Amino acid sequence: MAVIPVALAGRGYDVHIGRGLLERTGALAGPLLRKRRVAVVADRNAWNLHGQRLEQGLREAGKDADVYLVEPGEGSKSWQSLSALTDWLLAREIERGDNVLALGGGVVGDLTGFAAAILKRGCGFIQLPTSLLAQVDSSVGGKTAINTAAGKNLIGAFHQPSMVLADLDALGTLPDRELRAGYAEVLKYGVLGDRVFFDWLTNHGPAVLALEDAPLEHAVATSVAMKAAIVAEDERETTGQRALLNLGHTFGHALEAETGFSDRLLHGEAVALGMVLAARYSARTGLMEATEAEAVAGSVRSAGLPSEIAQLRLDRDGGTLVDHMRHDKKMDAGTLPFVLLRGIGQAFLARDVALSDVALFLDEELRR
Amino acid sequence: MAVIPVALAGRGYDVHIGRGLLERTGALAGPLLRKRRVAVVADRNAWNLHGQRLEQGLREAGKDADVYLVEPGEGSKSWQSLSALTDWLLAREIERGDNVLALGGGVVGDLTGFAAAILKRGCGFIQLPTSLLAQVDSSVGGKTAINTAAGKNLIGAFHQPSMVLADLDALGTLPDRELRAGYAEVLKYGVLGDRVFFDWLTNHGPAVLALEDAPLEHAVATSVAMKAAIVAEDERETTGQRALLNLGHTFGHALEAETGFSDRLLHGEAVALGMVLAARYSARTGLMEATEAEAVAGSVRSAGLPSEIAQLRLDRDGGTLVDHMRHDKKMDAGTLPFVLLRGIGQAFLARDVALSDVALFLDEELRR
Repeated sequence: MAVIPVALAGRGYDVHIGRGLLERTGALAGPLLRKRRVAVVADRNAWNLHGQRLEQGLREAGKDADVYLVEPGEGSKSWQSLSALTDWLLAREIERGDNVLALGGGVVGDLTGFAAAILKRGCGFIQLPTSLLAQVDSSVGGKTAINTAAGKNLIGAFHQPSMVLADLDALGTLPDRELRAGYAEVLKYGVLGDRVFFDWLTNHGPAVLALEDAPLEHAVATSVAMKAAIVAEDERETTGQRALLNLGHTFGHALEAETGFSDRLLHGEAVALGMVLAARYSARTGLMEATEAEAVAGSVRSAGLPSEIAQLRLDRDGGTLVDHMRHDKKMDAGTLPFVLLRGIGQAFLARDVALSDVALFLDEELRR
Repeated sequence: MAVIPVALAGRGYDVHIGRGLLERTGALAGPLLRKRRVAVVADRNAWNLHGQRLEQGLREAGKDADVYLVEPGEGSKSWQSLSALTDWLLAREIERGDNVLALGGGVVGDLTGFAAAILKRGCGFIQLPTSLLAQVDSSVGGKTAINTAAGKNLIGAFHQPSMVLADLDALGTLPDRELRAGYAEVLKYGVLGDRVFFDWLTNHGPAVLALEDAPLEHAVATSVAMKAAIVAEDERETTGQRALLNLGHTFGHALEAETGFSDRLLHGEAVALGMVLAARYSARTGLMEATEAEAVAGSVRSAGLPSEIAQLRLDRDGGTLVDHMRHDKKMDAGTLPFVLLRGIGQAFLARDVALSDVALFLDEELRR
């Protein structure tokens, strides 16, 4: 098992990564659970797959689970789900010093974390992420949110969990496509800040995707450690450091918006493709070698992830895609910061990117 | 004009107190307003009374007001109002670096502040409080919230404003009863932490309530300065220091709940009566002299505020009132901390108060 600390003054916490952690929830999280009955918010699928192990883990510490099931899918990140969940938590008299457990992927983590952020102006929560995407990304760092008609994650809070238990056993039940989508975020850490990790993934990626013990733990722990370091430096995305985690997200977001945030393109797939586009755009503007950009594309392809816009068969031009970017919540005084690359492992925040130039670039990519 | 700084590392701000501040909004807050169009969330009544002065103040700095009106009353602190307001702010493309103006009393301040807390995980806001209660209490310190079926202020966030402009001219249009209710919070600061201020109020209270320039500014500034000092020491109510501001609130809350949070008992009136009860309960348990408790009651009475439960004509016993306290969001592991007094100006947090004893005490007060 690996334990990665997230160092935040007064609000630091540990991310535990390993197999069989859910069965040990009571032992690991027990000191944070003051009452016998523990509120658990769970994705319905995740509960069916992993609920028994969690209940067993709690029982061994003399705790009982009080379970609130959330329907799978982004639709649950809504005002209605939020108010229904907070009503449930209030009815259970959850107090500021309590910790609510969130079992599932990013949807349950974001919804539960946001509910915890605003319940009595803030109670605690513990992330029990069951998807690879949630384990390496969304469960760490305290970004919580719901979606509104105007867009995804536009309403939310920075609210750090009290602990994260990333049980690698949970990944065994993930559909292959979801596993690969999560792997895109693993790859992202290499591309944005760790050339050695990128090269390691080139060799060991297949073993990670095959869920082999040591490679899997190394991949998740390395990803979480990088995220933890960045979050500790820039918790609220004010210095530009944390923004580097958005590598591939601005391009990816436009593609997700264009495909209606549907199963046509999963978030991780959009990030993978967006990362390729960020690399190619960086090469096009002379920031990095074109061969390096194609190395990024190659790593994405060999993980079975989309590397070309053409694969999406969009009947759109670059200007339409750029229009989606204009509503990005990172827009600041009319400009949109882009994460670009000076090389693999050398991401930086560019604040002078002209959206018109991005549109031209995307036109070329669409014709590619 | 008085300027009271709220010292919070990295998030400090000033509270400006004086006459004619709304006309100077652009001059005072201009540097915090990046765009020509400024989003203003206003209580409908407050807008009718003070909107022109605010618009004039903005215009002089080359700014235009984009106004969202909120219906007066606690009913606007709802999920529905919150999501409608955030939709409006999102449609106006408010960014994290922007500041939204909140013109009105506690309802508008709480609702707007909470919306700002969760908009894109946090944008700025500026409080323009128009009631005495909001000027000396709710606009300072960053407590924001909405109400739910389970109770008042149960969903919210700690989110500090970027500036507070307390325009004393706004108080001239307050109904007398509301002015007195706000004065209860002024009195509270003397009773909880400043015997000299309490004595000053005994002499100058009538001048404050008559809105005489110097006494009014001194009363508001002294109140805000004490709140600012306490908030700077204990922003999130974790050390017990900030909890002292709840003097009179636990008793008061039970009375508000019993009277249905209606016009039968305004919040400030409940705090005034609650403060008398806290003082008498402190005297009953031997913490302070009974004559001191009656001095508190006298100050409440001479401000035209209720000092006796009997005035409410409740057909209830102490146990019923205590039951309302059990749902207080400050309940912690089954106990409810009470703010009690060792003397006027010497409040402290008592964590060992037996609710059964409080019930007996209230029975006596009800028969008094």
